[in-house]
Amino acid sequence: MRFYYFEIIGTAVFAVTGVLAVTRRGLDIFGAAVLGMVTALGGGTVRDLIIGAPPFWLGDFNYVWAAAAGALAAFWIGARFRNTYRGLLYLDALGAALFAMTAADKVLMRGFIEPVAVIMGVLTGIGGGLIRDVLAGRPTLLMSREIYATPILLGCVAFVVLRSTAPAFQYASAIGFAIIFGLRALAIHRHMEMPDWLTHRDESSV
Amino acid sequence: MRFYYFEIIGTAVFAVTGVLAVTRRGLDIFGAAVLGMVTALGGGTVRDLIIGAPPFWLGDFNYVWAAAAGALAAFWIGARFRNTYRGLLYLDALGAALFAMTAADKVLMRGFIEPVAVIMGVLTGIGGGLIRDVLAGRPTLLMSREIYATPILLGCVAFVVLRSTAPAFQYASAIGFAIIFGLRALAIHRHMEMPDWLTHRDESSV
Amino acid sequence: MRFYYFEIIGTAVFAVTGVLAVTRRGLDIFGAAVLGMVTALGGGTVRDLIIGAPPFWLGDFNYVWAAAAGALAAFWIGARFRNTYRGLLYLDALGAALFAMTAADKVLMRGFIEPVAVIMGVLTGIGGGLIRDVLAGRPTLLMSREIYATPILLGCVAFVVLRSTAPAFQYASAIGFAIIFGLRALAIHRHMEMPDWLTHRDESSV
Repeated sequence: MRFYYFEIIGTAVFAVTGVLAVTRRGLDIFGAAVLGMVTALGGGTVRDLIIGAPPFWLGDFNYVWAAAAGALAAFWIGARFRNTYRGLLYLDALGAALFAMTAADKVLMRGFIEPVAVIMGVLTGIGGGLIRDVLAGRPTLLMSREIYATPILLGCVAFVVLRSTAPAFQYASAIGFAIIFGLRALAIHRHMEMPDWLTHRDESSV
Repeated sequence: MRFYYFEIIGTAVFAVTGVLAVTRRGLDIFGAAVLGMVTALGGGTVRDLIIGAPPFWLGDFNYVWAAAAGALAAFWIGARFRNTYRGLLYLDALGAALFAMTAADKVLMRGFIEPVAVIMGVLTGIGGGLIRDVLAGRPTLLMSREIYATPILLGCVAFVVLRSTAPAFQYASAIGFAIIFGLRALAIHRHMEMPDWLTHRDESSV
Repeated sequence: MRFYYFEIIGTAVFAVTGVLAVTRRGLDIFGAAVLGMVTALGGGTVRDLIIGAPPFWLGDFNYVWAAAAGALAAFWIGARFRNTYRGLLYLDALGAALFAMTAADKVLMRGFIEPVAVIMGVLTGIGGGLIRDVLAGRPTLLMSREIYATPILLGCVAFVVLRSTAPAFQYASAIGFAIIFGLRALAIHRHMEMPDWLTHRDESSV
């Protein structure tokens, strides 16, 4: 896999940002390790269970070591990292873009139709963070207006459309990657939220 | 499948009620879509993973489109639907009864024993709503006295008992269906809760 | 299986402690039954899905009956049990030690490498409680300093190290079991928490 080392690094970065997002007084080293590893490995694990593949880290434990190393590093030197947390958000966006593309590619390769690849790309990008937030008792990103999942969705759609309409075109995953990272980086840089017309505004609702 | 179109409609209804239950100011369209689809498809997905079958929607994406359409419809015209939310609860009860019966039937067909069919019928009926509530940060129905799961349990038990004691009897699933929908509709109509003697009352407990 | 009856008893105990941990005014019998069964069976179920085995209780429903019996017993006579809740914590520790060892053993037997056995031992020991806490809307043990998972981790590491370095040695699981139960019992007895240097103390963090 040409992306192998990027994937390992992306896994460690996911674990780092996963721990930094939930670190607070009272979190112990075991909790941090589990939450970081869940963030980094959880989305891909659920994806593999759904498509009937063995979880990817069972066959290559480097993913697990990378996730554990990232989680422990974030725990030990969390205060220092925190000052550069916004910088890490960009790295996290790179990781999410990479994971979504490799997931969508993996799913298409296994013969599933394009919409399954889109769903699994999004699930791989956001699933780990969702499980982490649930275990940590935090509101999940589904209940916020943060622009995190939408770039992943758009990038995955672009990727599968290019793949099915122009199979000879070699840069489908590069374009999907660029869409995800570009939109996400823009959202981070400009502190953008989902626009009002795509957000529920009914004051009277529960 | 003679129930096929009912199942598709039931899936869309589950997604509609799933979104309406969590809609509040700040929920964006992506969150609504995911929560609605999880409500409609989540229970059956977990059931299929446990019994070792591929998730049902992988083989027939109409379930996914129906869930997505229901979720988006509920998001866009949520305020209008809200006035008829109690009406939708009856539709939701029809969907739960249908899903529980088809699930129990599917599990028996695959050669599992009756208690597995009961567990899987209940899981299919309530699992999606449980995952939705967890992702949305709401208390799950397990912690309330709402009479939602008990009718499903009783209907599934009646179904498997009829199936095993009178295999020639053709209306086992119709009777199970009627029990689930009848009890649930009664509970909605009369605002019933679980009776005191089946509820923990110890004031001093945590 | 020489441990079979211990496992059945351990399952019931897990369900009892699982229900007692969440019992409060308003919990009804259905919620209690589900939460107790999830506590007792959830960790092993997730483990089996990940390693590609059918969930253990599908093949032997005695686990389910034991879990249901424990959950219902805890619901009905919860107030009486509550006075002996600390006593039950020791039984719970025995159950966790037993489950972790049988899980690690099962995973090694299926040909997975040692680190997988450690992860699955820990997951089997704590997974059910995590799912229960999430469904019940309680903070999970990952966010507390309670010493629950660390003994399981250390016992599983000791077990797999002994197994791989001294395959002829017959008491690897006995030693892992003793480590888990011993450390956990000590933590219960002395009300110990994770030490400060393994806990995040940054007052200023979110």
